[in-house]
Amino acid sequence: MPQHDAVEVITAKRDRGELSDSQIDWVIDAYTRGAVDDAQMSALAMAILLNGMNRREISRWTDAMIASGERMDFSTLSRPTADKHSTGGVGDKITLPLAPLVAACGVAVPQLSGRGLGHTGGTLDKLESIPGWRAALTNEEMFAQLESVGAVICAAGDGLAPADKKLYALRDVTATVEAIPLIASSIMSKKIAEGTGSLVLDVKVGTGAFMKDVDRARELATTMVELGTDAGVRTVALLTDMSTPLGRTAGNAIEVAESVEVLAGGGPADVVELTLALAREMLAGAGVTDVDPADKLADGSAMDVWRAMVRAQDGDPDAPMREAREQHVVGAPASGVLTRLDAMAVGMAAWRLGAGRAKAGDAVQDGAGVVWHARPGDKVAEGEPLFTLLTDEPERFERALASLEGGYDIDADNAAYDPTPLVIDRIG
Amino acid sequence: MPQHDAVEVITAKRDRGELSDSQIDWVIDAYTRGAVDDAQMSALAMAILLNGMNRREISRWTDAMIASGERMDFSTLSRPTADKHSTGGVGDKITLPLAPLVAACGVAVPQLSGRGLGHTGGTLDKLESIPGWRAALTNEEMFAQLESVGAVICAAGDGLAPADKKLYALRDVTATVEAIPLIASSIMSKKIAEGTGSLVLDVKVGTGAFMKDVDRARELATTMVELGTDAGVRTVALLTDMSTPLGRTAGNAIEVAESVEVLAGGGPADVVELTLALAREMLAGAGVTDVDPADKLADGSAMDVWRAMVRAQDGDPDAPMREAREQHVVGAPASGVLTRLDAMAVGMAAWRLGAGRAKAGDAVQDGAGVVWHARPGDKVAEGEPLFTLLTDEPERFERALASLEGGYDIDADNAAYDPTPLVIDRIG
Repeated sequence: MPQHDAVEVITAKRDRGELSDSQIDWVIDAYTRGAVDDAQMSALAMAILLNGMNRREISRWTDAMIASGERMDFSTLSRPTADKHSTGGVGDKITLPLAPLVAACGVAVPQLSGRGLGHTGGTLDKLESIPGWRAALTNEEMFAQLESVGAVICAAGDGLAPADKKLYALRDVTATVEAIPLIASSIMSKKIAEGTGSLVLDVKVGTGAFMKDVDRARELATTMVELGTDAGVRTVALLTDMSTPLGRTAGNAIEVAESVEVLAGGGPADVVELTLALAREMLAGAGVTDVDPADKLADGSAMDVWRAMVRAQDGDPDAPMREAREQHVVGAPASGVLTRLDAMAVGMAAWRLGAGRAKAGDAVQDGAGVVWHARPGDKVAEGEPLFTLLTDEPERFERALASLEGGYDIDADNAAYDPTPLVIDRIG
Repeated sequence: MPQHDAVEVITAKRDRGELSDSQIDWVIDAYTRGAVDDAQMSALAMAILLNGMNRREISRWTDAMIASGERMDFSTLSRPTADKHSTGGVGDKITLPLAPLVAACGVAVPQLSGRGLGHTGGTLDKLESIPGWRAALTNEEMFAQLESVGAVICAAGDGLAPADKKLYALRDVTATVEAIPLIASSIMSKKIAEGTGSLVLDVKVGTGAFMKDVDRARELATTMVELGTDAGVRTVALLTDMSTPLGRTAGNAIEVAESVEVLAGGGPADVVELTLALAREMLAGAGVTDVDPADKLADGSAMDVWRAMVRAQDGDPDAPMREAREQHVVGAPASGVLTRLDAMAVGMAAWRLGAGRAKAGDAVQDGAGVVWHARPGDKVAEGEPLFTLLTDEPERFERALASLEGGYDIDADNAAYDPTPLVIDRIG
């Protein structure tokens, strides 16, 4: 590999130049080995944030992060593979019904997930509220479960894109998270290294999402679709609304329960709509066009896969839901139509109740969270329950209630409510 | 002190905001204490380099760096004080005749200097070629020498602006040296902490200077003059040419010898011109307007101060000059007028001969350097000596000769030579 030095590479990007392939390969490898230090990578990350990278640079950066670790390969599976990634939202339990649903349609779903941080929940945190369920699988267990059950949701091992792991931790403390080239390459390096044949990206937009602005979300989605395409992964992205939280629950056990309702053929309409929209994209990406996923919810086959998937990871799908020790009901302060329910307000309340963590490694409460009894467009009556707050520690109620203040509007005139579409755009 | 956090401060500058006084105070103090780490400061430095700071921010940044350490006070001296700082050039021995000259005119000169790095020499390296001379003085010794002799040139202690010392080392490895707000605050924090009453800045412009471009040099000079003024130090800046090296020598002992020629009333015209121009500014800054420094060169009183100054620091002003063991003479390749002598080419040659160091802590050779026997405008004859190269290690000649290649032009047609003015502009 040609020799470069950190000052040369940082200077090139600082002065608005393009980084060469060999500069990118060198800097990612040297950073992974420790020959480029955190201070140097941090200056480079800030220069990238402010001066950008073009498609070639981002693609090479992603490849270099993939090359820093192992790469999985599911091409010997008997079924095609498809995966989904969400950029994170409030009440976003979609992976839970989606993975077994797509598997029930004949496409294998190798879903490597993470734990939550801040106001957005983590898929593994939700599943860990099921008694016995374990997130850590060996590659062999993962492969065997994909062959036998068709779906696996488990923790990503340390072997995938270690450069990304190190860089992400650095970006978090140096205000360099918000660079689209770095966000896109971080997500896509892990998804490409994971070895899926096709990928659907759920890019959230709105108050409860990382991207508040639809143009930035579209730019991120486009960048990720290009990266997937450049790497030979069939990739599409849906931009979906995250001004309003999904479904009627934000937490851990309560989101599992809501997901099971969807798998049983019921559940909130928006969760069903988004699950089916993403399932259709995953099936199309995997080349399966003759199955309607709605049928697989209706006939119970998605539920069968769910139960097998939970059992395969030592969980008990029939165990009673873990419940919070304390609850506090908030009544509607007026009668009228609920015209706004802010995703960030709800997400912060759930986090403050103990459903999420403030820093990596903290424990979460299985039973904590927020249930909202109305969604925008619903009529509410003064004094009737609007929210139920759940936690094991009642001293948490006060700060959670403060989060919800100003987080919703009730229109007493019962004016017509104009809903935002759930799927805003499709890219790819 | 109000609490901030690093991500908040970095984010503000990243997003083109102004840093508040309290953010600046906090971040400099926290960095000095280690509560803000190198990676965070590096991201902030890159954001400052790319997004700038306004006058208030730079002034506060400078104050915060001064507050990180001790501040000297010469207000109880019986004489006013004046200091000079040069941004660094080739053959720039001006401090050596200047400090005793100004002292001979009745103004005390407390000159804290540094060692050289790369192609520009260091004042302390030059003086250390005098047998016995020592750079390290206590504050008490410095004060006593200022009172008795009137001039002191010594090493800056670790107590002045320790935040700057730490930040400078970081900037050097993260490609964040070239930010005018950071360059200006680095220089001025040390000069203001040093406690001088007035200050003259010699901002070099040209191939052999850090600033190649006159507009950037003017911006740096203006920023530093504003900082000095804001801190109550009477400050002016001269922009001076560094396309051509100063005088006829670049090295250590040979520059001391040239300085002594100037103090004896002779020496190269350009060195005399710049020494007098800077002396007049220092005297004016200190309120002394009734003395012509040219008289003090002519009557030997500047030489008397020089000898006392060297002796006060245990040097022997009468010791024979330390000479290099080897020399190599380069003849003029043609007859004509020397129309260009490139400062960077000469500086690199002197450095490669052993007069300078590649990294902090390396030793330098007292006798190494380059003598040029003609200056631009002089006639040269083919085969007559044009350069004499000096070193203790003859294996260094080859790379030094390579530096000089293409570094000068001889016009065989003896066309009229149009000299660049030495003092380009005055700011303040």
